[in-house]
Amino acid sequence: MTRAAIIGASGYTGSELLRLLAHHHDLTVSVVTSRQYAGKHVGDVFPHIGRRYGDLVFREPDIPAIAQDADVAFAALPHKTAMEAVDVLARAGIPVVDLSADFRFRDQSVYEKWYVPHIAPELLERSVYGLPELYREEIPKATIVGNPGCYPTGAILGLASLLSAGAVSSQGIVIDSKSGVSGAGRSPSPGTIYPETTDGIRAYGVLSHRHTPEIAEHLSRAAGETADVTFTPHLMPAIRGILSTIYARTTSPMKTEDILDIFQSAYAGEPFVRVLGPWTLPDTRWVRGSNYIDIGALVDSSGSRAIIVTAIDNLVKGASGQAIQNMNLLLGLSEDTGLSHIPLFP
Amino acid sequence: MTRAAIIGASGYTGSELLRLLAHHHDLTVSVVTSRQYAGKHVGDVFPHIGRRYGDLVFREPDIPAIAQDADVAFAALPHKTAMEAVDVLARAGIPVVDLSADFRFRDQSVYEKWYVPHIAPELLERSVYGLPELYREEIPKATIVGNPGCYPTGAILGLASLLSAGAVSSQGIVIDSKSGVSGAGRSPSPGTIYPETTDGIRAYGVLSHRHTPEIAEHLSRAAGETADVTFTPHLMPAIRGILSTIYARTTSPMKTEDILDIFQSAYAGEPFVRVLGPWTLPDTRWVRGSNYIDIGALVDSSGSRAIIVTAIDNLVKGASGQAIQNMNLLLGLSEDTGLSHIPLFP
Amino acid sequence: MTRAAIIGASGYTGSELLRLLAHHHDLTVSVVTSRQYAGKHVGDVFPHIGRRYGDLVFREPDIPAIAQDADVAFAALPHKTAMEAVDVLARAGIPVVDLSADFRFRDQSVYEKWYVPHIAPELLERSVYGLPELYREEIPKATIVGNPGCYPTGAILGLASLLSAGAVSSQGIVIDSKSGVSGAGRSPSPGTIYPETTDGIRAYGVLSHRHTPEIAEHLSRAAGETADVTFTPHLMPAIRGILSTIYARTTSPMKTEDILDIFQSAYAGEPFVRVLGPWTLPDTRWVRGSNYIDIGALVDSSGSRAIIVTAIDNLVKGASGQAIQNMNLLLGLSEDTGLSHIPLFP
Amino acid sequence: MTRAAIIGASGYTGSELLRLLAHHHDLTVSVVTSRQYAGKHVGDVFPHIGRRYGDLVFREPDIPAIAQDADVAFAALPHKTAMEAVDVLARAGIPVVDLSADFRFRDQSVYEKWYVPHIAPELLERSVYGLPELYREEIPKATIVGNPGCYPTGAILGLASLLSAGAVSSQGIVIDSKSGVSGAGRSPSPGTIYPETTDGIRAYGVLSHRHTPEIAEHLSRAAGETADVTFTPHLMPAIRGILSTIYARTTSPMKTEDILDIFQSAYAGEPFVRVLGPWTLPDTRWVRGSNYIDIGALVDSSGSRAIIVTAIDNLVKGASGQAIQNMNLLLGLSEDTGLSHIPLFP
Repeated sequence: MTRAAIIGASGYTGSELLRLLAHHHDLTVSVVTSRQYAGKHVGDVFPHIGRRYGDLVFREPDIPAIAQDADVAFAALPHKTAMEAVDVLARAGIPVVDLSADFRFRDQSVYEKWYVPHIAPELLERSVYGLPELYREEIPKATIVGNPGCYPTGAILGLASLLSAGAVSSQGIVIDSKSGVSGAGRSPSPGTIYPETTDGIRAYGVLSHRHTPEIAEHLSRAAGETADVTFTPHLMPAIRGILSTIYARTTSPMKTEDILDIFQSAYAGEPFVRVLGPWTLPDTRWVRGSNYIDIGALVDSSGSRAIIVTAIDNLVKGASGQAIQNMNLLLGLSEDTGLSHIPLFP
Repeated sequence: MTRAAIIGASGYTGSELLRLLAHHHDLTVSVVTSRQYAGKHVGDVFPHIGRRYGDLVFREPDIPAIAQDADVAFAALPHKTAMEAVDVLARAGIPVVDLSADFRFRDQSVYEKWYVPHIAPELLERSVYGLPELYREEIPKATIVGNPGCYPTGAILGLASLLSAGAVSSQGIVIDSKSGVSGAGRSPSPGTIYPETTDGIRAYGVLSHRHTPEIAEHLSRAAGETADVTFTPHLMPAIRGILSTIYARTTSPMKTEDILDIFQSAYAGEPFVRVLGPWTLPDTRWVRGSNYIDIGALVDSSGSRAIIVTAIDNLVKGASGQAIQNMNLLLGLSEDTGLSHIPLFP
Repeated sequence: MTRAAIIGASGYTGSELLRLLAHHHDLTVSVVTSRQYAGKHVGDVFPHIGRRYGDLVFREPDIPAIAQDADVAFAALPHKTAMEAVDVLARAGIPVVDLSADFRFRDQSVYEKWYVPHIAPELLERSVYGLPELYREEIPKATIVGNPGCYPTGAILGLASLLSAGAVSSQGIVIDSKSGVSGAGRSPSPGTIYPETTDGIRAYGVLSHRHTPEIAEHLSRAAGETADVTFTPHLMPAIRGILSTIYARTTSPMKTEDILDIFQSAYAGEPFVRVLGPWTLPDTRWVRGSNYIDIGALVDSSGSRAIIVTAIDNLVKGASGQAIQNMNLLLGLSEDTGLSHIPLFP
Repeated sequence: MTRAAIIGASGYTGSELLRLLAHHHDLTVSVVTSRQYAGKHVGDVFPHIGRRYGDLVFREPDIPAIAQDADVAFAALPHKTAMEAVDVLARAGIPVVDLSADFRFRDQSVYEKWYVPHIAPELLERSVYGLPELYREEIPKATIVGNPGCYPTGAILGLASLLSAGAVSSQGIVIDSKSGVSGAGRSPSPGTIYPETTDGIRAYGVLSHRHTPEIAEHLSRAAGETADVTFTPHLMPAIRGILSTIYARTTSPMKTEDILDIFQSAYAGEPFVRVLGPWTLPDTRWVRGSNYIDIGALVDSSGSRAIIVTAIDNLVKGASGQAIQNMNLLLGLSEDTGLSHIPLFP
């Protein structure tokens, strides 16, 4: 059994790693860290997990010590804190899947424009963007996987194959996304209290959300030219789930079936991509708790406008599930190990 | 006091008319109809209203008889049933605000393409589209007001003044709307039961929703040319509220303030339009239960892309509140009579 | 017009006072205070209110200065802070309705056991418990009204008349209450974030909630002997509303109608109490946004067990609405002034 | 592999069986029936399941034919329809777990008083009430398991061991339960549409719910005398989950720890019962999607009143999960096979 550390295990992505890894046959969780809960049992902090991890206790995030007690690591830390930890782990030869933004960008300057100065730029070369459906071959060669953002996962997988195929234009793309509240993390804030997040919806981060450059980079790569993307996230009253409604122009008149054919061909054999039949569009409830991304599409009667809709669970395919998928690839395991849950519906 | 009939008063738009009209100083509800509840007290069907209407009892929808007992009427019926009732009322000289789609279109052929054959096409000339912010002058001259659809209200008011001003292009407009479930009415259906409408979101009616031609007609009128609009509604887990996120291209480089200036100028003096300051975008929770439409906008740094967001309560500004606003205009009353509620927040 | 100050106007009870007082014909809001928002416009802090209060700006809570600018005051502050402010206001001769617990108890020792040492015990004699349905005669004689807690309002009004009438036993009473999340206030906390308050329910404050002595005091008064009450609050996924399910033993075999008769007789003429007919039990959705308390009851076939259910909106009848009702009484106004809204349903 | 039929697989208990059995190593689903969906693929009716059951297609409920194609059966049908199917299956020698009420009562007259005339009373002797924690020894000897109701599961497991131990009185018990909406099934009805089930709570079936006799029977058995139980269900705005707040009188002064000790001892080794430590009470969110029942308790300072709180997922431990647990017992498999999921939180 490979021993895994979860660094920063007291948030939602951390607890979700614990939920999923309990069913993983080749990974055992040997270390969980939390400044806030150091010394406490996992089951006292997360009553839903209870005693499933026996006497496992949260530790302070002493990274060098952790490197002794784990063979691989998941970093579920805020950006900046993450790269400090990853830097130490990488020096100790520990493969890491990092769930922050710190290793998602090849181009240091893009990262630094949207986030903070990078403290370990030399590691960027040894890292890979962990979207297996696009970069499956590269992931096992890396030592650090930059796990994609939740919104980019749903957006990129709904467009990249169409752009690669030249089926839709890289210009004038609109991505309108709606996310559940767990995407905002577990720290209480005025923006996430119940009375002001339930029974309504609002846009946020309009024209300024940090996931924008991440989406643009990978769509541009797929298109072979700079993609022009407008991305608008919304906070909807749901615990989990991101629905992305994507508007693109076809490059030549096309039917719904043509778009679906491209998806089906691009994603044939993918364990976690489900291309829905014509006239069925995704619902975030159909992927809840699972690592699936559901994709549907419609083309208008003129053949010129394509609407693509994707749905993911932001904490699974959009975070912890994809992180395990990436770790499986890093370790040469079957990619779906520990990730075969059927979504919880209703 | 003017006596008002509410025909089809057992659904959400009917009960909302009852809620609002209880505070109206110049209208008294003399007739409420419902096939299902004929003979029952209003308070037994709507315990939230209780005895506020005393002994008012639901009647069968015998329209000629109603024309004796009411001076004006609100028709809160499904399309087709509505025009049959309106036809009788109009012959009896009763001014009507019709909340269905039956009198929303000037062009009979458009109506018939999206709905059913029209039984009273001669009345279309005597009807007006009841969006007071655009057609205030025409409404008092009509005898039938076609009360706008909920989505069109939020979409048109977020774009018409920009199109009239030539600030944004009429081509390539995307309107991505998110509606609460009350918009689907009160009849139980698989698509509105709690377990499958809460905690998630889905698109529906993609490229085929009947509000599309209504939106297109009035945006085209504002633009002076045929507008090219993609409209996608979504069902979100909220009781009330429609948020419309609108994507348009500016016709020349522009700043956020330029867009807001156009709105402020277009809507100066409007009792129910609130243009939000820069960097504040609408939230459906801020209009809940009220007749307000909140509008905000942002332009990107290049000045070429404008994102406009509007929020309404679909049952008030999107239906019953706007119907009363129209009736006030028909009757020469102050437009905000009975509609001055502050939104219920949280 | 009487000028009213709202001290502590940035929380939910404060904003609810603003919502309701906008429709009050005899009170005008002259002062609103907030340490956090001092200097800001009401409409910038509460976009749902917008410009309805024109240029009214939040002030620092400088109580002596406020006493110059207001004729009456609502104190919407946490306990302890409240009594400090009320002490100053009372010395300045300003009648106050205090929404905290500081003036709810006649017996200083009970207050101090459950809360903190009282700094103005001499004022307790000049204060009255502001439950108009029980103490309407005393309220106008007081200068300070201790506005009841939200849970006590729903619990006491569901039992006091039965206890006074000797219909149910004062022993072994169980009150199981379910509250919406707005009752926990507007400050973000781990216990009120969306992902952990939606889609589920939990009990809290079991056998230790501070509303227990308040309930017990008034039920004991009604019974004429010490009532034995078990009170359990729950946090349910709703914005507003408290449903209290009350279990009591009848003192002699009784029918449902007997219980309802006692209520109807006790509450005849009450503007805000609605006794529901047999077989209809309250729903918190039927009182949303209103000052109503709905009461229903059933007795089992043996006639020995009575189940009473009450529903209120915790922010209205459970807080700000009742505060205005009390202020109306203090000022000799019609009790329902500004409080006639029909509940918002759905 | 044992072949299992799910008869009535288009409702929530049916789809939940499909979700859980996909992870069961010893059972394979060979038959699914649905009158409504006969001929359709599982994945077309349940997009969340997708192609996990390959080409499995819904069949008409032709029970004799099913008996050829399955070794065991789950009956997920309404009562009355269920016993007709079970009768045929039993004659064909197929062991059945029946999720309806038809085989829950040993006493035919109790069943018939609350439900309908029983068509196969002779089978009642061959059936057992499938609450493994109480009747584990009897279940493998039966051929028909009457799977407990959702409310009874949470209520009985929170009281039976205390009654057996003589720790609490069998008289004056109050059980106040709050259930998610999935408990009402998948058929649309006015009582389960979103706008009228979200953002509020109501009691229903007060003093008349059919789960009352089921609860009373097993509590009486545990107590060794007729238990006097008041049971009140409520519909709360959650998809899944039942929280039962139970009020009982101790038979002698007791501490919280005494009650917890009884539970810990009674449920030692139980795979699905989690007794929470003192001062931690259950939350339905901590069991979501899992077969756990969480139990907590508090005793007041006088030692005379005990409050016990239990939480289950009504579709899992309250229905399909417990059904699989029973089937495992019938088949001599490890009891937790296929049921080891960690709850989905948040």
